[in-house]
Amino acid sequence: MNNEDRYQRGVEKLREVSGEAGERVIDMLKDIAPDFARYLIEFPYGDIYSRPGLDLKTREIAVVAALTALGNAVPQLKVHIHGALNVGCSREEIVEIIMQTAIYAGFPAALNGLFSAKEVFKERDAS
Amino acid sequence: MNNEDRYQRGVEKLREVSGEAGERVIDMLKDIAPDFARYLIEFPYGDIYSRPGLDLKTREIAVVAALTALGNAVPQLKVHIHGALNVGCSREEIVEIIMQTAIYAGFPAALNGLFSAKEVFKERDAS
Amino acid sequence: MNNEDRYQRGVEKLREVSGEAGERVIDMLKDIAPDFARYLIEFPYGDIYSRPGLDLKTREIAVVAALTALGNAVPQLKVHIHGALNVGCSREEIVEIIMQTAIYAGFPAALNGLFSAKEVFKERDAS
Amino acid sequence: MNNEDRYQRGVEKLREVSGEAGERVIDMLKDIAPDFARYLIEFPYGDIYSRPGLDLKTREIAVVAALTALGNAVPQLKVHIHGALNVGCSREEIVEIIMQTAIYAGFPAALNGLFSAKEVFKERDAS
Amino acid sequence: MNNEDRYQRGVEKLREVSGEAGERVIDMLKDIAPDFARYLIEFPYGDIYSRPGLDLKTREIAVVAALTALGNAVPQLKVHIHGALNVGCSREEIVEIIMQTAIYAGFPAALNGLFSAKEVFKERDAS
Amino acid sequence: MNNEDRYQRGVEKLREVSGEAGERVIDMLKDIAPDFARYLIEFPYGDIYSRPGLDLKTREIAVVAALTALGNAVPQLKVHIHGALNVGCSREEIVEIIMQTAIYAGFPAALNGLFSAKEVFKERDAS
Repeated sequence: MNNEDRYQRGVEKLREVSGEAGERVIDMLKDIAPDFARYLIEFPYGDIYSRPGLDLKTREIAVVAALTALGNAVPQLKVHIHGALNVGCSREEIVEIIMQTAIYAGFPAALNGLFSAKEVFKERDAS
Repeated sequence: MNNEDRYQRGVEKLREVSGEAGERVIDMLKDIAPDFARYLIEFPYGDIYSRPGLDLKTREIAVVAALTALGNAVPQLKVHIHGALNVGCSREEIVEIIMQTAIYAGFPAALNGLFSAKEVFKERDAS
Repeated sequence: MNNEDRYQRGVEKLREVSGEAGERVIDMLKDIAPDFARYLIEFPYGDIYSRPGLDLKTREIAVVAALTALGNAVPQLKVHIHGALNVGCSREEIVEIIMQTAIYAGFPAALNGLFSAKEVFKERDAS
Repeated sequence: MNNEDRYQRGVEKLREVSGEAGERVIDMLKDIAPDFARYLIEFPYGDIYSRPGLDLKTREIAVVAALTALGNAVPQLKVHIHGALNVGCSREEIVEIIMQTAIYAGFPAALNGLFSAKEVFKERDAS
Repeated sequence: MNNEDRYQRGVEKLREVSGEAGERVIDMLKDIAPDFARYLIEFPYGDIYSRPGLDLKTREIAVVAALTALGNAVPQLKVHIHGALNVGCSREEIVEIIMQTAIYAGFPAALNGLFSAKEVFKERDAS
Repeated sequence: MNNEDRYQRGVEKLREVSGEAGERVIDMLKDIAPDFARYLIEFPYGDIYSRPGLDLKTREIAVVAALTALGNAVPQLKVHIHGALNVGCSREEIVEIIMQTAIYAGFPAALNGLFSAKEVFKERDAS
């Protein structure tokens, strides 16, 4: 496979998972680190998200759990709560995943995750 | 619901998810913090894991992702890789989940997660 | 003990420690995760904070240190700086605790903790 | 104050808090980073621990909470569980502090803290 | 060496690295923790930054990498992106360093680092 | 560029930076996640490390700082202390970089980094 195909596959996967929010991140990188925009499409989306063996919904469940636990990447958590909803998670499932992380990363991480989910749900209700 | 029921429900859920490894953690707490052993059964397993709205397999996928990302709780990650396998994840799915976290928590976190999975798979092959 | 008593005990402890700020957190959870609001009252406040063996002031000292060190839960740190003051810490003691964490979690964590304390002290002077 | 006095004050405070374990850390630094051994005595112990405004027992409570929450500094956590006991904390208080952090940093961090405490208690029983 | 000399050396080093941004941090500490302002000058700048063996540019490269990886100290990261530029790093080098950390701390940490760099570059273009 | 070239470039860069230790990591992944071994060569080494704009020595300085600060990836930190030495850092420079991170990530992170460096230096003296 050449890199152009990998990039194209990544662009499509990014659109499927993250929609406009993903494209906005890519745009924000254009003037400061255009190569990093390319890597972000190629490795995460062209390589990892494009793998068989786990459907996109399950991947986004893992991502929401990981980002809630890390607790220091709120913008990315919001992008991926959108992403999880885009690929078939229900709001109830997202709330359950975040509550589950309270056990492993503590109540503040879970609270901040729930408040991010609340904002995302509002954004979607408004549009 | 009284607390005794909650405790019993937690004991059963702990056994279902974590099997002997879960009981070993409870035993290790007996002489130093027996009340914490009880809380561990009641809140995580009696409350959270017992909720409807997300099946056990999905919960364990979220937990493996969260613990891999945090990267500072290797014994618990191993318990929950066992747990994920106990409740229906395949080894391939676990490897996919851990590779997915490389994007969000970095390659070292994912490498250490994969090496934990490797040890767990060996333990299961040996028994 | 039944769960209703545990909940009531938690509500009282939450009020004693966190006052209005605690109630505001509970309110913010009502529409997105009402069960999590209940868990937050039951386990942290009904179980842990209600234990004998450590007074509330000492518990809040531990919490301010832990949240300053983690550094990714500013809203909760502010709630518990209020909490520490509510249960008998002086402002000087809070500043000492946060400075102490500089050794273990670095100067940025301590600086951000001190700036949170500064905001809390201003809020209390204003009201 | 000149730096020699600060160093001497730090040496005494290190001995009071961390005893032989503290001296062992200093020794381990001698061949690789002797200046860092000196800074460790001067800033944490000569400056911070020597301040009035918070007694040593309260400082160690904050340190045990912070290190349990961070979860990636087990050797230092053990040194400071010893330290907390050296300056007047009871074993019961240490167990309470670590259980308190479960709320803020998750159950794995608290479990690993309790297991560190268990090892320290055994070391002291053996000597 | 007496402490007064150490303080003076720290003030000069802070000015050289962090310029006005450093002085602003010191000012913000004056009313809440003036001693901590003094420690911040003495230990980081008077002791560590003043050491021979590594030039200031290399030190700031290490600091930008560490703060990007930690991901929970955005104000300090911005101060040190300014700092790195003040002591001779180019904008391109800073972007490279932050992209490098994506491997070790994940894409969200690197993205947030790049967006901090973008803000700093704008601030410098505006003044 | 096609992916085969990217892979070859990555293999060479991995060898240059991490030598045998890098190859050992790749080998350890072979039976559990061979694709991840490939990604590890392609993205970090084939893409990032192969970029112009920052020499390998400076990249490794950033990596040692980032891994010391994260504090939860000791095996990787040791690989990259070796790496830093392989591409031209002196032992003194590595010690300086780790001491520098004490300011930003705390003394325990720096102590554990220095003890990792001590082990690496011994390994190299022995061989």
